[in-house]
Amino acid sequence: MTGRDVIELSVAGVLVAVAATAHFVSATPVLTFGLAALAIAMLARLVGAATEQLGSRVGSSAAGAIQSALGNLPELFIALFALRKGLTLVVQSALVGSVIANSVFVLGLAFIAGGLRNGRQKFDSPRARLIATLTVLTAAILAVPTLSHAVHTTAASHEKTLSLICAGVLFTLFFLTLPGLLAVRDTFEPEPARWSLQVTVVVLGGAGVGAAFVSDWFVTALKPATEALGMSEIFAGLIVVAIAGNAVENVVGVQLAARNRPDFAISVIVNSALQVGLLLTPVLVFASLFFATSLTLVFPTLLAICLLLAAWILAVVVYDGESTWEEGAILVGFYVVVAASFWWGA
Amino acid sequence: MTGRDVIELSVAGVLVAVAATAHFVSATPVLTFGLAALAIAMLARLVGAATEQLGSRVGSSAAGAIQSALGNLPELFIALFALRKGLTLVVQSALVGSVIANSVFVLGLAFIAGGLRNGRQKFDSPRARLIATLTVLTAAILAVPTLSHAVHTTAASHEKTLSLICAGVLFTLFFLTLPGLLAVRDTFEPEPARWSLQVTVVVLGGAGVGAAFVSDWFVTALKPATEALGMSEIFAGLIVVAIAGNAVENVVGVQLAARNRPDFAISVIVNSALQVGLLLTPVLVFASLFFATSLTLVFPTLLAICLLLAAWILAVVVYDGESTWEEGAILVGFYVVVAASFWWGA
Amino acid sequence: MTGRDVIELSVAGVLVAVAATAHFVSATPVLTFGLAALAIAMLARLVGAATEQLGSRVGSSAAGAIQSALGNLPELFIALFALRKGLTLVVQSALVGSVIANSVFVLGLAFIAGGLRNGRQKFDSPRARLIATLTVLTAAILAVPTLSHAVHTTAASHEKTLSLICAGVLFTLFFLTLPGLLAVRDTFEPEPARWSLQVTVVVLGGAGVGAAFVSDWFVTALKPATEALGMSEIFAGLIVVAIAGNAVENVVGVQLAARNRPDFAISVIVNSALQVGLLLTPVLVFASLFFATSLTLVFPTLLAICLLLAAWILAVVVYDGESTWEEGAILVGFYVVVAASFWWGA
Repeated sequence: MTGRDVIELSVAGVLVAVAATAHFVSATPVLTFGLAALAIAMLARLVGAATEQLGSRVGSSAAGAIQSALGNLPELFIALFALRKGLTLVVQSALVGSVIANSVFVLGLAFIAGGLRNGRQKFDSPRARLIATLTVLTAAILAVPTLSHAVHTTAASHEKTLSLICAGVLFTLFFLTLPGLLAVRDTFEPEPARWSLQVTVVVLGGAGVGAAFVSDWFVTALKPATEALGMSEIFAGLIVVAIAGNAVENVVGVQLAARNRPDFAISVIVNSALQVGLLLTPVLVFASLFFATSLTLVFPTLLAICLLLAAWILAVVVYDGESTWEEGAILVGFYVVVAASFWWGA
Repeated sequence: MTGRDVIELSVAGVLVAVAATAHFVSATPVLTFGLAALAIAMLARLVGAATEQLGSRVGSSAAGAIQSALGNLPELFIALFALRKGLTLVVQSALVGSVIANSVFVLGLAFIAGGLRNGRQKFDSPRARLIATLTVLTAAILAVPTLSHAVHTTAASHEKTLSLICAGVLFTLFFLTLPGLLAVRDTFEPEPARWSLQVTVVVLGGAGVGAAFVSDWFVTALKPATEALGMSEIFAGLIVVAIAGNAVENVVGVQLAARNRPDFAISVIVNSALQVGLLLTPVLVFASLFFATSLTLVFPTLLAICLLLAAWILAVVVYDGESTWEEGAILVGFYVVVAASFWWGA
Repeated sequence: MTGRDVIELSVAGVLVAVAATAHFVSATPVLTFGLAALAIAMLARLVGAATEQLGSRVGSSAAGAIQSALGNLPELFIALFALRKGLTLVVQSALVGSVIANSVFVLGLAFIAGGLRNGRQKFDSPRARLIATLTVLTAAILAVPTLSHAVHTTAASHEKTLSLICAGVLFTLFFLTLPGLLAVRDTFEPEPARWSLQVTVVVLGGAGVGAAFVSDWFVTALKPATEALGMSEIFAGLIVVAIAGNAVENVVGVQLAARNRPDFAISVIVNSALQVGLLLTPVLVFASLFFATSLTLVFPTLLAICLLLAAWILAVVVYDGESTWEEGAILVGFYVVVAASFWWGA
């Protein structure tokens, strides 16, 4: 382990401890909410790092499967606790928010970092384009139940069945496309493992268990905190959960862009969005069958529209074949406006 | 004629005979509906084959014109009989369904067939891209009256006039772009005629007359059959009519992809979608002026949205420049979800 | 000055004089409206020519800034007078209309002119693609408040705040991207100044003052004229103001395409659309704070949808990498259908 790893582990430990304190001494919900969000962000980063270390040991095919299964663990915990509390709107927003945060916000930051450091960046990897194409298709599939509901078709009264069909299609597609997506990794040289297997397993286990606990505190504080802040539940899911649970991990994509490897950066960032759509979403729809409130794919209409806009923008900027920091700035600008339009709780 | 041609002719003959029996002995509507759909699919294939044979005799410029005029004959018959019975919803769905079935479902099958057989396929024909671009533009034009109606603009009370203007523009564009689209054929070497002129004319005439009769039985059985099945009228048009009347003919596109000629495959498949938008649709709008119920281009909102989504997806996958079978699988997955969302009649 | 310049100046002078006469003798509003529209179109062309002359004197970086600031002067005057009269719908339509007119209508004319004269035109400038990408992003940002309002989110009751945030983001993005857009000019060799500095300043001042007066007469006649014609206020803004105030200036883009310089043509035409979105729109939103009626970015829903469709089409045709006159014809066809759908005032 490097010194930096040790620092990250310590920061995570401290953040979890502070969040725990806030939770158990019944600090104001806003404080607990903020601290828990920070702790989750750091734990998500550790889970990501640990699965990557595990990946570099087991060979790249299994690595992809492991990363898909474990990489989304923090988001999965938050979603499960939120479902148990009946906060389906938060879960829906967090799912859509992960796709939007990755394809617009994180990609924008990567373009800015890459552009300021290396000037105009060209990328022409067929892989990057393929992943963008798959994300567009996934977003279109995800949007169908909502669009169907929004225009009051007869399917509107069958939203649960339609959501299950949709989730079934997405889940099947995940298994069909998994080998192809795994192959994506093969095209980039993997880095050798820096951590021993023991350390990796301990960090993964610890961060996973920590994420489970902190997610519980986070979800408990969510409703009173958002009310106190005047923030909508959708904003909490779309922006806070999405960034805490997923996007921070993608700091690695931003770093890759800064190191002038734009093709790899785009693949990593967009792949993450794709996994949320193809794996996490159907898993949660099926899991919700065991809860009192079931999760459907009938999102608030604007969420589905923003998902389609984000996928559209993603395709346009990736197919463009070049990025500049100005393009990154406009991507971030779009994200700011979308976030603003969901801020108000009333 | 090859042995395969004889088999296809025989199958078509048997299917027509069986459908006729079902119709005249008043079998259950569901049975008649299913048999007539199969017979139409086979007749559509024969009409396609015969116009192609005719085309290889008359030189490729006239061939394109003949194919445009005669290739859509089965769909035209169904639409005319349906209009006479006032089933405008079925006609609207069938028109939109042809575009969606070609640009999503048939293209997806072509990518799967091509990908499983030949691995990753590259295509970079400017022609394929041009046809995709024209399809996007046509879909956008077709969607305007519906969108206008859906958001309650003042044009909503002028939907018939707006539809006629729209149809006039599409029809004009068809004649303007016809020479350019004909030239598409020139870039692919035409195959020599396999059938004698006599055989060609007899097959074309026979299949045409057959299609007219079977279309009548199909449309008569449609309403009771869909009610018995719990299927919506939109589903019957969007999926059943679109696949029976049009998409099966495009099996040739799937075969081309399997034979590793992806550029040609895409051109054939998408050109078919384009002709429905630029020719069949305006012709039916004008023809409906002679019927009791007029056909407008104000579709159910979700149909127009799915048309735009399909055109968007088409552009993304064609511009991508590569296809894999995974991409094909996701295209088919999208088609399944769209179909499911239109299934319910109530 | 060339003979052609003198002719243009004289035509503009005569048109202003005739429009003034119509205004002061209280001719029928329809006549005044039409004459003022023609005069504005000609003045807009002169302002464009004069800013270009000024640009070729001051070096290309300052030239871009000057062009951005002064090139939209006629539209700015119309918008300000219309805002003062409370005609916010006209202003909103004119802003959206400028983007649509440039990216669809003028681009279509350029493709037709270029295609008929030079056959299939290839363009592959990364600059053209970058500007198209930025336009897509700008359109997406502009559409968010309207979409948010249309689906009745909680942000609907905060439309003024959301519009100001949106305008702030756009304005910031304008200043961030300005240097990059200026650099666009660098890649094309600038033409030497044809006019002396004195002539340039006099023409610019004269045309600017003229535009201010004529805009006032135009806006005064607008309401009675549109009522007399049965034309909607939206149509007046979307089509008449957009073409008079902006698109005619882009005749230069059409000429460039005819001279077989498609990359430059696309950059000029689309850059103009981009400036309306990034500069003119936020400036007017902020300026409206000083008027009785404030301008929000909550457009009539169909306007925002057409803006997105136009941006989508723009991206598709620019990324295509080739243009033919048939493609141009379909672009114009789309514009005609959009115009028709906004024609009716009731």
